[in-house]
Formats: sequence, structure tokens, C-alpha cells
Amino acid sequence: MALGERGGWDKSESRYCGVETDFNDDMPHLLSFNLSSGGFDFVVASLMDPNYRPSLMEKDIGGGSHVLPFAGSDLVLSPSQWSSHVVGKISSWIDLDSEDEILRTDSETTLKQEISWASHLSLQACLLPSPKGASCANYARCVNQILQSLNNMQLWLRIPLVKNDDDTTDFIPSGDSWELWNSFRLLCEHHSQLSVALDVLSSLPSANSLGRWLGEPVRAAIIHTDSFLTNARGYPCLSRRHQKLITGFLNHSIQVVISGKLNHGVPSVSLDSALDHTGTNVESSQRHSLRPYLDYIAYLYQRMDPLPEQERFELSYRDFLQSPLQPLMDNLEAQTYETFEKDSVKYIQYQRAIGNALVDRVPDEEASSLTTVLMVVGAGRGPLVRASLQAAEETGRKLKIYAVEKNPNAVVTLHVCCKLCNYASVANIMCPKSGRGHLHIGILSLVRLEGWEKTVTIVSCDMRCWDAPEKADILVSELLGSFGDNELSPECLDGAQRFLKQDGISIPSSYTSFIQPVTASKLHNDVKSHKDVVHFETAYVVKVHSVARLAPCEPVFTFTHPNFSTKKSNQRYKKLRFEIPSDTGSAMVHGFAGYFDAMLYKDVHLGIEPSTATPNMFSWFAIFFPLRTPVCIRPGSPLEVHFWRCCGSTKVWYEWCVASPNPSPVHNSNGRSYWVGL
Amino acid sequence: MALGERGGWDKSESRYCGVETDFNDDMPHLLSFNLSSGGFDFVVASLMDPNYRPSLMEKDIGGGSHVLPFAGSDLVLSPSQWSSHVVGKISSWIDLDSEDEILRTDSETTLKQEISWASHLSLQACLLPSPKGASCANYARCVNQILQSLNNMQLWLRIPLVKNDDDTTDFIPSGDSWELWNSFRLLCEHHSQLSVALDVLSSLPSANSLGRWLGEPVRAAIIHTDSFLTNARGYPCLSRRHQKLITGFLNHSIQVVISGKLNHGVPSVSLDSALDHTGTNVESSQRHSLRPYLDYIAYLYQRMDPLPEQERFELSYRDFLQSPLQPLMDNLEAQTYETFEKDSVKYIQYQRAIGNALVDRVPDEEASSLTTVLMVVGAGRGPLVRASLQAAEETGRKLKIYAVEKNPNAVVTLHVCCKLCNYASVANIMCPKSGRGHLHIGILSLVRLEGWEKTVTIVSCDMRCWDAPEKADILVSELLGSFGDNELSPECLDGAQRFLKQDGISIPSSYTSFIQPVTASKLHNDVKSHKDVVHFETAYVVKVHSVARLAPCEPVFTFTHPNFSTKKSNQRYKKLRFEIPSDTGSAMVHGFAGYFDAMLYKDVHLGIEPSTATPNMFSWFAIFFPLRTPVCIRPGSPLEVHFWRCCGSTKVWYEWCVASPNPSPVHNSNGRSYWVGL
Repeated sequence: MALGERGGWDKSESRYCGVETDFNDDMPHLLSFNLSSGGFDFVVASLMDPNYRPSLMEKDIGGGSHVLPFAGSDLVLSPSQWSSHVVGKISSWIDLDSEDEILRTDSETTLKQEISWASHLSLQACLLPSPKGASCANYARCVNQILQSLNNMQLWLRIPLVKNDDDTTDFIPSGDSWELWNSFRLLCEHHSQLSVALDVLSSLPSANSLGRWLGEPVRAAIIHTDSFLTNARGYPCLSRRHQKLITGFLNHSIQVVISGKLNHGVPSVSLDSALDHTGTNVESSQRHSLRPYLDYIAYLYQRMDPLPEQERFELSYRDFLQSPLQPLMDNLEAQTYETFEKDSVKYIQYQRAIGNALVDRVPDEEASSLTTVLMVVGAGRGPLVRASLQAAEETGRKLKIYAVEKNPNAVVTLHVCCKLCNYASVANIMCPKSGRGHLHIGILSLVRLEGWEKTVTIVSCDMRCWDAPEKADILVSELLGSFGDNELSPECLDGAQRFLKQDGISIPSSYTSFIQPVTASKLHNDVKSHKDVVHFETAYVVKVHSVARLAPCEPVFTFTHPNFSTKKSNQRYKKLRFEIPSDTGSAMVHGFAGYFDAMLYKDVHLGIEPSTATPNMFSWFAIFFPLRTPVCIRPGSPLEVHFWRCCGSTKVWYEWCVASPNPSPVHNSNGRSYWVGL
Repeated sequence: MALGERGGWDKSESRYCGVETDFNDDMPHLLSFNLSSGGFDFVVASLMDPNYRPSLMEKDIGGGSHVLPFAGSDLVLSPSQWSSHVVGKISSWIDLDSEDEILRTDSETTLKQEISWASHLSLQACLLPSPKGASCANYARCVNQILQSLNNMQLWLRIPLVKNDDDTTDFIPSGDSWELWNSFRLLCEHHSQLSVALDVLSSLPSANSLGRWLGEPVRAAIIHTDSFLTNARGYPCLSRRHQKLITGFLNHSIQVVISGKLNHGVPSVSLDSALDHTGTNVESSQRHSLRPYLDYIAYLYQRMDPLPEQERFELSYRDFLQSPLQPLMDNLEAQTYETFEKDSVKYIQYQRAIGNALVDRVPDEEASSLTTVLMVVGAGRGPLVRASLQAAEETGRKLKIYAVEKNPNAVVTLHVCCKLCNYASVANIMCPKSGRGHLHIGILSLVRLEGWEKTVTIVSCDMRCWDAPEKADILVSELLGSFGDNELSPECLDGAQRFLKQDGISIPSSYTSFIQPVTASKLHNDVKSHKDVVHFETAYVVKVHSVARLAPCEPVFTFTHPNFSTKKSNQRYKKLRFEIPSDTGSAMVHGFAGYFDAMLYKDVHLGIEPSTATPNMFSWFAIFFPLRTPVCIRPGSPLEVHFWRCCGSTKVWYEWCVASPNPSPVHNSNGRSYWVGL
């Protein structure tokens, strides 16, 4: 029946809630009890009698064939019931790293039998018991063998959510259960069907330590009834920290599973009324004792803030790798312009910056006499022209605008058809770099529509080779990529700077890229699925969601405009150091999330660096630089990273590497895998 | 002229000795002085005027084209002179990791210009200056770019042979120059054209620390004249530790280069006579001041022990990867039998073991009445039959031998043609597994030749399905691979055990495999050159030579025969821990060298485990288990390794992984890459 409705957000996996049950060989009854009367969506149920041991069976029957003590035959439920409502719980007694060889062998046999049975039933997932000790190599070896030929079933490795800061627990290495998970998944080589089910207990590790899990493939959170508190009315509830954790999980498509026994003296009358609203006709003897816990989780789910419209729009982009745009080599499509032009926040910032620059440049007393020459380079379909005109209007300054755009398709929209004052000049410009595309006419000219004929000259040309008729006071551009300079804004503006006056203003005046190390197992696996080095040496535009940000951002490359220095170069080299907070514990770095911040003019900035991001702007997702081999970092051992921006005659590219704690190969040498064409 | 002759060993690269020179723009003179009169084989010479700086040039000439100040044009020497006699020495002032951006940029420009020039001259190698500080990422990034498109020139990174045990040197991380090399080569991803030239200084690190370098791609040892001592007669000589190091280098094809100034007051008369023996007519003014050092190195070279014949024979196998034999699936070729049969040491051990077993089994007083039934399984072309007969002769015991061999081609040699007492029985045996091959008759029957007709019955059958007419007292086999059980001796002997008496003896009675972690950059690169995972998950037979053995061997799997237990399994699992000596420093583990030791009978053993290896036996090289990603280990952090022997219905395979310090993937899951067929 699911947890209910959350505003604008009802498609997530996390709206389904499960319950962990004991072994019961009457599976149909188990299901009807927990689903129909309990209100749960699925059960996490043992498939095999917990008393079964292969070594005892052989002794009993003498090697003859025998029926394994599974919970019912495959016929007791329909195939869709099996696959939708049952997660197989692998026998919890198994211990493949025991010193006892018979137990080890029995465990391996049983594990393989149960998984094989679960595959036969087409279950969506099996829950693997937590490794029993600090060592898990044999368990991981066996699971890894199973994963090599598994159908599309997921294996959820159960991991207790434990991190003790004192290193005294010998049950888990350094008292941190993340380490156990990390060893296991490294041994299984980040297999995409291996994921985590976290056991949420009554005490929780630090927030930094919990944050790591958001970058890991956590599929389920198993909440034990004894982690619940009791509220004044006798109902179960969770501590504030638990609530925050669970809503964080629900927000990351992690399903909740309730486990344990009724621990709370829920008043019986209330219990009745709580059940009533489901509308099912249930005998009170069948009332499910764990229902109050489910109700509480549903309450948390429904109480979550509804997703803002923009977030809903971007849901399908979450953690989805896109190749960065190559706007210089390729022409953008109308759809792309359409999307970008909707980002009103961005243009408001530009308008503010232009307005401030106009006021600084032209004193009030000269406002009516002085005309400022403003050039928009990369004008696209005109939004920055409009922002400039609005800034002029707002500040009462006079403007003459040149709108330079290399994409001939965009220019069609910029001017149109016939009635343009400057039609001839546009047609005559022959630009070696622009290459005239297929002109199509569809959208009414902004120029005509908005009455720009007097002030705006449209130039269909690559700014790097335009021969401007006069010099500009203000050069306005928006050529920024997610990583600032990655769409070659520096190279374009270097080319345009020729027609900026010596004391002219560039908007933006500077921009800086930033990176931070992240855990991002989903992104890592998506890159890995291509099975080549090229994809590991490519930066991707991605709306990062299921990632753990392990340390604050550090600045990488800065470009300032205009730059009249004679020996300028757009090559850059930066060495960075990141230190993760000491209470995080160790963590896995799958790569780096990259961002930018741009100073448009003086204090007017615009950017996506998380700590200073411009709110409600959606033109840019982050960029992701993967690492071929993920690097494990430990508190106190800083991560040293090097980034290069390299320039050749036909392309610009990044190289990157980790130098410490363990050096990685230099990624993308000579731009062999990923580059941006000039 | 080379260092001279070493007994049976004159093809090594290391017989050529070079000299490091200053910049000289008269390259022909430099060459004639050092080669013709100096006696050196090559010079390590600066290619470019050390005063050149690109940033100064541009200022002088204003960006126009100019001739770079190289040492002579490409025409001053013939192409073969350039490539045979000159190693390019890259300007030592370059520092790509300087804080000074101009120096960094100048360094990158110069490095690329010089390498480009050296490539144009087809030099075999260039010597790269040692990184100036602890950080080398930018230097490595630039060299890595160069390596991506280099012709077949080698780049020798100069590394001082320094390791201070106190961690106070900040010039080199933790005072260990190996760390610098390790970072550099990891950043360059173990590129096969990047190697090391070690600067040998007057003080030397510990023997364990030096030992690491034997597994690294060291191409040259640059010995500084001030590392030499002066002997009683005023000549330069080396300390015992230096001598040992240098002869070790010479034994590993590492070339010596002499560097520095004359530091020793060599008597002038002796100097004359020393020069005389070259037979060249040299004016005394041109006498090369470093000649006494060359003479000393030549003396060391000539004084080295001549290589034993067997080592000479095996020279071409050194560090050469071979796929292990599959004697069960494939039939061995005559050449292989021929080789193995020459290993007299092996058969002497078997003869001793069989003799001891015969004496234990039959008291002297029953020697003439009791006949021992001995079966040789896997008899091949008969060497173990001969050893058995000789043991019987030696001990005066009576034998009846069954020689079982599945390879029909080998059987042809075992019996022959017509005069065999047991011809009929051979022909009649139909064995489903043996598959009758193409019988060819060539070699005279051992049976007839050696008069075995009365005592030996030859059975052409796979021992796993032979129906023996009686039971054996002694079962003799030699089915061992380099890793003991890797040619499936356990499975074969399990099959043969049916026809061994309950109190019968198996020779061998047990065998154990061993592994040790090794640095083996050559093997790693050879595996890597296949660019797939399969080769990294395959074990290779290899005569390991250029490897560093980082820790003593540990036992892995043991098999004991006969094994009458009812629940026996040939699956095995072993967890191993290795700790490297604290004075080694850190080291890179590229994989594991594997060996075996077999107890034949009581105290008679036979094996290749280095600490107990049977001398002068050549039937087995070591086995090498690679690691997909080499693991760096540090003293005090033990290396934890897991090995599995897995058995399926048609194959047997190993899986292996590192669990600590950092877990690796489990290699060869399900035997996907490498297995031995049953």
C-alpha cells in the first residue's frame, strides 16, 4: 500500500516499506499476514529452515537426493508475488570465514543453494547476513563467484550502522562497519549487483560518518524496533537524529524495513482506529504488532517537504552521466537554448552586473549624452541582449549593442526576415570558423518584437575572427561550463578582447573552478560499465545526488578578463589538498565533483559551488571527474590531487591525478580520451 | 671495447660501460676522446648548452625562429654512432615542480625539445635528471605525455641510491629515494619505456633496501668516482659492499656508467701500462683520467663466477612468461619428455626414495622371496620405471612393475613393436579418457633395450579409469607442477589410489606449495601488454631472475597420499601473512612467486622452494601469480593474501586476492581466466 503521498514525489522506490520476518514454511500465510493485514509492501523472509545443515543431511540420508527444506515450493505463490513481495533472507547462521572448516563448507553450500533458489523464484533481491568477524575474504570470494553468473537479482549485504571512535571493537576493523563493507565490495570489484542494507540501531555514529553512506549503493535501511522511542501517547517515534537519517534515506530512494518485536505499549483502542483507516476488514486477532512502526515511517514520509518544481523536473537527471557540451565545435540545438533561456535567475544577475557597470562607467550627469558600446559575444537567441537593454532602461543609460553569435541557426531568431536595419551587414560577413548551417526561420524576431532595431547590430560570426567596426566599453558573455573554463570561455574571450577598449569591462570579470572529492559508487559503476579507459578519463556533466561530499571544495583554476598581459597562457596547473573530517572515518573517493563561480561585475556573482551557489539557478549541473581506481582515504592522511588545464593547437583538455596517499596514473594524458575542440 | 669476457657469459648488455660527460658542442671529439682513448663504450652526454633558457631566448630574439643550442647537428655523427654510443643527458637544471612558474615552463619546453631532438637522432636512451624535491607530479605528467608518443627510446630516470632510516630528509619522502621512483612510475602507469638509472654514492643503504631494486627496471648504475676507495697501490677500488652491489647489477644486465673526476692519485707509470694493453696508439696528453675506474669495473666483471652450464642454457628463459603445462588435457611432446628426462638429480631422489621404501617394506631376510608390486602412474617414456628398477637392484629387492601412461605417444617408446611379453594386454585396453593419438615409432624400446620384459607391464590408459589386475605396494608418480598440485596430481592420485593396498606407500607421500611476494616490474609489464584482465588472472611458469623477493616463502596448500578419508576434498583455502623486514623500506608487490616442495618418502624430498631447493634440478621453474593492480607495502603493515584452490566438474582453478593493506578484487573468479582441465 506504500507509505502514502509526498507532494510531487510519488515515484520513488522508497515509498515501499518492508518487514523482516522469521522462517515460516507457510509462505502464503506469511505474505497475507504481513501485507494484507500488516500493511507492509514486502517481506524479508528466510527461504530455508534455519536448522538445515548440509553436512548433517548427508550423514542422515547417505548422499542420496533429498528435498531441501525451503519455505514452500515455487508454486505456493505466483511468480509476480514472489518477485514483488519477497526479499530472500539468506540464513543468518552462515559464516564463510569461520575457523571451523565444516561450518565454512556448510555455509558455502547453503549460500549457493539459497541464492540459486531465489534466482529460480526471480526475487528482486536477497539479503546477505553481515560478515561475522573482521575478515570476510572467503565470504566475498564466494559471493563474487555467485555474482559472475547471477540473473538481475540484487544482493544486499547487511551491514550494521556502527562506528566507534575508539578503536577497541575487534568485531569490526577499527570499529567502523563501513570498513567491512569497503573490503567486501573491493574484493567483489564494485559489482553493480552488490549493494548494502544498513541495520539502523538505537545509537548513531556522527553525521559526517553517516554522510559517507549516501555515496554508497544503499538499498535498504533495516530499522530495529528497539531504535524507536516512545512518545507521550505511548506510540513509537524516532529521535531527531534518527528522523533526519531516515528522511535522508527516503530522499535517496532507500527502502525502509522494520525489524524486531513490538516494544511499545500502544493503547489498544488507538491501535484499532489506526488500523481502521486502511479500510480492510481485519480480525483483531490478526492485527500486525509492527503496524505502529510502519505508521510512523509513513508519517515521516508524508511530512517531508514537497519537492520544488525545478527538482521534480530534474529528477530524471539525478546521477545520470552526460557528456559536456562542445558549444564551440558543435552548434547548440533550439531545445538547449530554450532550456537555458528559462533560467531567469541567471539573467537577473547579468542585468544587475551590467547595470552596475553602466552606472560606474557613465556618471548620472552624462547619462543622456554618452552612449556605451556593449558587445554580447555568444549572444545565442538574445537573452543577454535583453538583459543589457533592461539594465540600460533601469539605469537610464544609452546603449549601442553588437550581438555576436557564431551559430547561424541562433542568429535566425536574433534578427529576422526582412525588416532589419542591419540585414545587409549580417549577410556579408564571411567568417572562416563559423560555417553556415541550415537556416530555418520559425520564431519571430526578438529584434522586431522588442523594438531593438535602433540599438542592436547582429553579427553572425565567430567572435575569434570578427573584425569589429569600433571598440567596446563593455563585453558581455556567458560562455561558462559547469567547470567554468571547460567550454573554452578563456580562449573565446581572448579572441574577443581585441575589440574591447583598454579600460573596458568584461562581464564576467573572472571565474574560478572548484572541486571536491566524492563517494559516488553509482557514477563509478556507470563509467565502469563501458569497460574501457576512455570513459574513466572523461569529465561528465551530472546532477549529483547520491554522492557523499567528503571535504569542502577547493578552488582550481581562475581566469580574469580582460587580460592584456603579453605572455598570457590559458594553461593552468594546480595542486590541491583535501582533508576529511576526523569523525568521518575512512571513505572511498570515486572522483571529483566540479563546479564554478563567476564574478560578473564587482560583487555580483553567479555560480554553482555548493557553499556559495546562486539559488534557484538551473543552467548548470556539476561536472564529475572520475578516478580509474577509486582511492580510499583515511582521516589524517590528506588527499593530494593535481589538475592541469592543457592547451594544444586544436584542443584544450584536462589531466588529473592523485599524488597522495597513493599515486594514481595521470588521467587523460595528451587529452587522449577527452578534450574540447577549439 | 666492453668489459671483457666472463666465462660462458658474454652477451649481456652489462658488458658495456659508459661515462658521463659535460656539455661539449664538439660531439665527434667528445666521442673519440671517451671511446677510442678512454676505452668506454658510450657517453652519457648533455645534448644542449646548459645556459639555454627558452624564456631568455624569446626575449632576445623576439619570437622569431632560432637554432636551438644543441651539441652539433645530426650530421656530425653517423646515425649508428649516435644510436650506439650516445645516451642523451637531459639538462639537469630542469625542475618541473618548482614554485617558480617561469622555471617550470622553461623546464617543460626544454625537456620536450631535448627529447624530441634525441628521438630525431634515434638515441637508445635519455637520462632524465632526478626530481628536485619530494613532489614530482608535474614532472611525471610531462614525461607521461612524452611517453605516449615516443619512438622506442628508453627514458632513464636518475634516482640517487639513498635511504635514510631516520625520516629527517625532506628532500626525499621518508628519506627513501625508492618512494620518489615509485610515485613517478605510478603516475606514468608503469610505462615500459620508463626505467631507472641509479646514482651509486659512497654510502649504501641496507642490503634489504638495495634488494628491492632488482625487481625494478634499472638499466644503469652511475658510479661516482668519489664512491671509490684507494687501494695500497694508489688505484681506485670499491668497498666489499659496493663490489657485491655492482656484481649484482652486472648479473642483472645493468650497465655501469662512471661519473665524476679523477679522485685517486694513480701512479703515472702504472697508468701507462694500464693503457698499453688496449693496443691503441694514444698520446699521453689524451689519456682519459677515468680509465682506472673503468679498468676496475672490467676487473670486477671478469672476476665474476662463470655461469654454470645449466644457467647458461636457461638464460633465454629468464623472466619469460610461459603458460603452465596442461599434461592431463594435452599430451606432452617428445621434446618435453627429452628435457625432463635429462634432470638426473630428480631421478636420483626418486631412486633413493623408492629404495628406502623397498627396504622398509621387505626385510632383508625376505628379499629373495617377496616381490613388491610397484606401479608407476604417469610413466611417460620410462625414467621412473628405470629409477625403480635401479632401486630394486641396489637394495636387492624383487619388483613387479606396472607402468601406466595415458599418452599413447609416450607408450610407443615405453614398449615397442613386437617382442613384448605383454603386447596383447596393452592393445586391448580401451580407456574412455585417453583417446588414442597418432602412434609413431621411432625410439628403441626401453623395455627391450634394458631387458625389462620379465618385470614390467605397460598399460596405456588414464590412471583414473584403469582396472588394475592386482593391488600395488608402492605407487610412484611424478605429476607435480611448479606449484605442486597445479598439474592436478591430487586428482590423478585420487583416481589411482583404488589400486594401492591399504598399507601401501605413495611416492611422493605429500607435497606443499609456497608463495612469496615479489617486485617484478618486467613480468608485470609483460602481463599488462596484453591489455586484458585474462592475462592478469593467469599463473605463469617463469624462471624468475629480475625480481626482488620481499619476504620469505609461506606454505599454501598441502596434499598427502594416500588419503583414505571418506570426506576428502581437493578444495583448499589458505590465508597468508607476509611482513617485510623493517629495513627494506616500502616496496611494490607485482604478484607472487610460487614454488613447491614434495616429500617423496620419509626424509627424501625434492622441490624448488628457494630455502630448501634441491640443487641442480631443472625440471621446474617457479610459477608467477600476477596482481591486476600492484600493491605497495610498508614495513609494519603486513600483507594479507588469500589463495583458494577450487574444483569444478571439469576443471580446477585458483583464485587469489590481497585483503590487506588494501583489498584487491578476487582474481580469476570461477576460473574465468585460467584453469586446468580435468
